[in-house]
Amino acid sequence: MNKKDFVFRPIGIIRSSHKKLSEIPIQPVFSQGIKGTVIVNPEFAEGLMDLNGFSHIYLFYYFHKSEQTSLHVKPYLSEQTHGIFATRAPHRPNKIGMSLVKLNSIECNVLYIEEVDILDETPLLDIKPYIRRFDARENVISGWQDEVSDDVAFYKGLRGFKKQ
Amino acid sequence: MNKKDFVFRPIGIIRSSHKKLSEIPIQPVFSQGIKGTVIVNPEFAEGLMDLNGFSHIYLFYYFHKSEQTSLHVKPYLSEQTHGIFATRAPHRPNKIGMSLVKLNSIECNVLYIEEVDILDETPLLDIKPYIRRFDARENVISGWQDEVSDDVAFYKGLRGFKKQ
Repeated sequence: MNKKDFVFRPIGIIRSSHKKLSEIPIQPVFSQGIKGTVIVNPEFAEGLMDLNGFSHIYLFYYFHKSEQTSLHVKPYLSEQTHGIFATRAPHRPNKIGMSLVKLNSIECNVLYIEEVDILDETPLLDIKPYIRRFDARENVISGWQDEVSDDVAFYKGLRGFKKQ
Repeated sequence: MNKKDFVFRPIGIIRSSHKKLSEIPIQPVFSQGIKGTVIVNPEFAEGLMDLNGFSHIYLFYYFHKSEQTSLHVKPYLSEQTHGIFATRAPHRPNKIGMSLVKLNSIECNVLYIEEVDILDETPLLDIKPYIRRFDARENVISGWQDEVSDDVAFYKGLRGFKKQ
């Protein structure tokens, strides 16, 4: 521990049908129909009040299976190497994962979600609501991602995922 | 330290003209024209390769001035109390902040950004590119935020910010 370090503690766990890293679609948009749950530790359940009014939420979690840090990576959608911060790959210096998922319902401390691209048993760090006026941007340029066609992105983005 | 804890270390620092918490607009969308810089520690600079192709990026940082955790908060845009996870307020169990800012240019390890709603000297944890096909969602419902008109949101969202 360094005095500049920050300690984060899981506030819950994400459950999904994804048991193998290599068979998870790379993003929620390629995970349509895939359901999962978020089990928030009961002591934080009060913090969920009014979240059920939102159709989409951001989940922040720890990439707990990432055991290395790489500053250069070749993402699934690219034939070339890019800097880690120009990608969403897991081997980052601080292993924060983010997924924008669909929220179907909440029962007590359990969130029922859809469009899940997250490994089963991933530790949850935070939940934020997706707010249209803050989070939707038009006229954006998406660098190397713009060179990948939607068809290719969808095909490659599924990775080894097999429909049950 | 608990064995389930995760240790995050700053990878840089965010510089801005915002010196007082009470005078910062609450979100990047209310911070048009406000510039800032992100100084990435030199040992991580290689991870920025190709990030300059993106017009918008997410910054993840630590709410270093938040000294409490509240499960219920009354956000600036609301007259009512909501669960912390239904808001973007800082007093969260894990104090992860996220801002979607405009990226103007990169010189070595320095990012020149715009639409900055972040306090000066905030510790940087991660950078991810905003990718239209992953991050833009249509047909979303934004709960209590949908009850706030755009005019009221803009007016209240500026908080104590005064144009220089």
